[in-house]
Amino acid sequence: MKNAVGRDIPCEILKGGREVFQGSNHRDGQVYQKSSPKARAHIRPQESKVAGSIREALQLCGIKDGMTVSFHHHFRDGDYVANLVMKEVEAMGIRGITIAASSMGAAHDPIGKMIEDGVVTGLQTSGIRGKMGEAVSNGKLETPCILRSHGGRVRAIEQGEVHIDIAFIGAPTSDECGNARATGGKSDCGVLSYAMVDAKYADKTVVITDCLVPFPNFPPSIQAVDVDCVVVVDQIGDPKKIAGKAARITTDPRELMMAQACAKVAAATPYFKEGFSFQTGVGGASLAVNRFLEPLMRERGIRMGWAIGGISAPMVELLEKGLVGCIVDAQDFDIDSVRSAQNNARHFEISTSQYCSPSNKGAFVNKLDFVVLAALEIDTMFNVNVVTGSDGVLMGAPGGHPDASAGAKCTIIVTPLVRGRIPTVCESVTTVTTPGECIDVLVTDYGIAVNPKRGDLSDALSAAGIALTSIEALKDKAYSMVGAPDPVEFHDRVVAIMEARDGTILDVVRQIKPFEL
Amino acid sequence: MKNAVGRDIPCEILKGGREVFQGSNHRDGQVYQKSSPKARAHIRPQESKVAGSIREALQLCGIKDGMTVSFHHHFRDGDYVANLVMKEVEAMGIRGITIAASSMGAAHDPIGKMIEDGVVTGLQTSGIRGKMGEAVSNGKLETPCILRSHGGRVRAIEQGEVHIDIAFIGAPTSDECGNARATGGKSDCGVLSYAMVDAKYADKTVVITDCLVPFPNFPPSIQAVDVDCVVVVDQIGDPKKIAGKAARITTDPRELMMAQACAKVAAATPYFKEGFSFQTGVGGASLAVNRFLEPLMRERGIRMGWAIGGISAPMVELLEKGLVGCIVDAQDFDIDSVRSAQNNARHFEISTSQYCSPSNKGAFVNKLDFVVLAALEIDTMFNVNVVTGSDGVLMGAPGGHPDASAGAKCTIIVTPLVRGRIPTVCESVTTVTTPGECIDVLVTDYGIAVNPKRGDLSDALSAAGIALTSIEALKDKAYSMVGAPDPVEFHDRVVAIMEARDGTILDVVRQIKPFEL
Repeated sequence: MKNAVGRDIPCEILKGGREVFQGSNHRDGQVYQKSSPKARAHIRPQESKVAGSIREALQLCGIKDGMTVSFHHHFRDGDYVANLVMKEVEAMGIRGITIAASSMGAAHDPIGKMIEDGVVTGLQTSGIRGKMGEAVSNGKLETPCILRSHGGRVRAIEQGEVHIDIAFIGAPTSDECGNARATGGKSDCGVLSYAMVDAKYADKTVVITDCLVPFPNFPPSIQAVDVDCVVVVDQIGDPKKIAGKAARITTDPRELMMAQACAKVAAATPYFKEGFSFQTGVGGASLAVNRFLEPLMRERGIRMGWAIGGISAPMVELLEKGLVGCIVDAQDFDIDSVRSAQNNARHFEISTSQYCSPSNKGAFVNKLDFVVLAALEIDTMFNVNVVTGSDGVLMGAPGGHPDASAGAKCTIIVTPLVRGRIPTVCESVTTVTTPGECIDVLVTDYGIAVNPKRGDLSDALSAAGIALTSIEALKDKAYSMVGAPDPVEFHDRVVAIMEARDGTILDVVRQIKPFEL
Repeated sequence: MKNAVGRDIPCEILKGGREVFQGSNHRDGQVYQKSSPKARAHIRPQESKVAGSIREALQLCGIKDGMTVSFHHHFRDGDYVANLVMKEVEAMGIRGITIAASSMGAAHDPIGKMIEDGVVTGLQTSGIRGKMGEAVSNGKLETPCILRSHGGRVRAIEQGEVHIDIAFIGAPTSDECGNARATGGKSDCGVLSYAMVDAKYADKTVVITDCLVPFPNFPPSIQAVDVDCVVVVDQIGDPKKIAGKAARITTDPRELMMAQACAKVAAATPYFKEGFSFQTGVGGASLAVNRFLEPLMRERGIRMGWAIGGISAPMVELLEKGLVGCIVDAQDFDIDSVRSAQNNARHFEISTSQYCSPSNKGAFVNKLDFVVLAALEIDTMFNVNVVTGSDGVLMGAPGGHPDASAGAKCTIIVTPLVRGRIPTVCESVTTVTTPGECIDVLVTDYGIAVNPKRGDLSDALSAAGIALTSIEALKDKAYSMVGAPDPVEFHDRVVAIMEARDGTILDVVRQIKPFEL
């Protein structure tokens, strides 16, 4: 059955009441009964919830075959927690586990093997990379992997489509009752936004820390009232990979040129005024946009009201210079943003629900003016792919991309026209992760195209003297440079389902065929 | 059917699966499915949720006969919000409303009339006073009023025994999307702890403010993700009655003597050590305990780890002197505590669930060392009454009394032996609001008695040279001074049910008989 972005969704995927994607606002105003966990009343006075080991915590929480466990990805490539827990699950002989993670990354290669061995048979995540991506793309996972945006994950939990039996929450500090914070200790990650929904909706919640602090550890990101037990381990992650040095802003003249073009596009719209709100991704060009925004803001004498999203050094700098009212933060990408989250009174931790869930009564993205994001591919319908590589293998993450794109008044995709021998602008993306109707402007190193449905933006940009081209012309240019790409060969079998943020089906990813020379 | 405090609970009250009280820890470890609200997905970008008036908000939320609406009592005797909303409900011709408030007070006399008129037919609250108390005690409310402790209210909501259709949350400041804070504006109340559970569990949530501030109003006590609409009114309350000047610590030598005795009792227990936790009520003697604690702490060279509960100036002073690690705050009683909540980085707002709910995975009271509380009556089984006056009329509030008493390792009741011609220590309290098994020590102006089940405390106090007597001897002394009280005359009809914090029935309150000379 064809959906609103023209993808044919196999009928077997739609069993059990699933719907195909029917436009971003199809379910706006939907009234639903929120899901809820089983909780345990703790009435008797108590001193501590500390369990002796991860195994003891697993036993206390009643781990068994077929359960769903969850993890967050605030420790990024430095995460040890998911592997520590899954190693113990495997050692206990447990099988058929579904992992419901906010994202999985390079740190989780050991879990690729557990997919092959049947320890893990289900996976629901935003990001998927490395050995796990290969295992899924090669058809090793028993059930199709479900890929969701960050907001879509919160929605799926709140609407009961994923029920977490046990949430494992790595925390830089915790007290003996489970009041957990993102700061202090040796593995600071700035915020614990992704894990907040897990703590509220999982039947059992385990906090895993390498720094036990005196009670009460306040103010907590994860509240003791939601925590069943606390485990102290030697090390929850590799601090260097959790929050490393700030990424140097690109010196690539091509990226700088594109970044400057993005800033000019933003400044040419009616939304560029006192108090505007702004989000950038952390790619080279996206990140550099901050630098070019500053002189334009000073020239107009305006300040940004709030900045949101994954935060890194350039935005912290703007805050410190007084050019931003406040930062609302759902993830930190470097040591500067971690420090700012800890110390700056105008830098606030928010939950991923507050950030971008489509199922609550109004997330921040619903009020966002601008977002500047990258793409692996973008097609002539403006559909974006950020999850499958040019070989068709899962190697990315929708993350907050579909959420911010849907909410923002002006969504700008910035990408070079070609990468190596691969055209970025193409006829049809391998996988639709963000529907084209949410994308307003494409900035490339060979020109700028506005989505035809945004005639108002075309007019505003033209009036500001910004030269525009069409996305078809950009695609033709790309193909003239590197040739039309050969279609990737897939088997029929669906290995992953890309959900739209509202839970409808945006696309499917199929098993790859081994590359033959 | 007799319960564990010897009260006979009529069978008709127990219909529908209610149980009689069977001891404070009877339901410890109970596993239950948490309740949940109906929510509305708000996907489409949006600017504002501001409704033009309270009536418009009521219409948007679909107000109709028979609904349950909720209010919080952080504005105490200065609250205008409940009356503003209920006046409009009445004007719309709506009938059969149940009010589920965290507490109702002297400010709400106009609602007494609505009980008589059938606009309000159900009432669930902690406190009940003035005209509302009289209306209920005189049998005017159609259904029995349900009285709960603060923790019991959160539990009842979390376990689905009360379902709130529309929550009305008065807030000193809010932005246009409903991020609401207790501070700023003209009606500061310090914290919004009681309202937090309402926002999370009500189908619809309306924020009512008299100070609209720029988006985002951060960090919020009530999050926009839970708010359906925002109403701006001229005045949400009378600032002088919301947070007035700090109560002067009593100069009554009798109260000072009792306060000193409480401090000495605490200091004689093994719990009086570095990092101890502490709560006092705000009555004259309870409040003065802080003053006498200070020299004892200095003498021993120890600091309080955390103080909790309703907060007032004396505890803020101890925090500022560095004698308290932090304050965790669920209600502010004066301008000093409001200012401290706003400005002191070691003064934290907590939800009432975190404070004292028996249905979560571990509230603060579960780790409390000491609480010093008042009583209207205490009987020889140590049962305490804080809700019915000597004439049998409802005029008080269990509040956090049963919660802190159940949690604390050492619960001290401080009260004069007689008040006017009424014995405070008596054979049997009019209404049991806190079961005697939760009370450890009684301090009066005529002696100190320890609950016989706490032989360990008797030993510790005796070892410290504190003279002890029995509660029977105190009762005899009281009766010898003012005579045995005449039993209050009641009709058979049950007008209020006093729930234990776990939802079992602790006692009932019956309709009063008019006093005849």
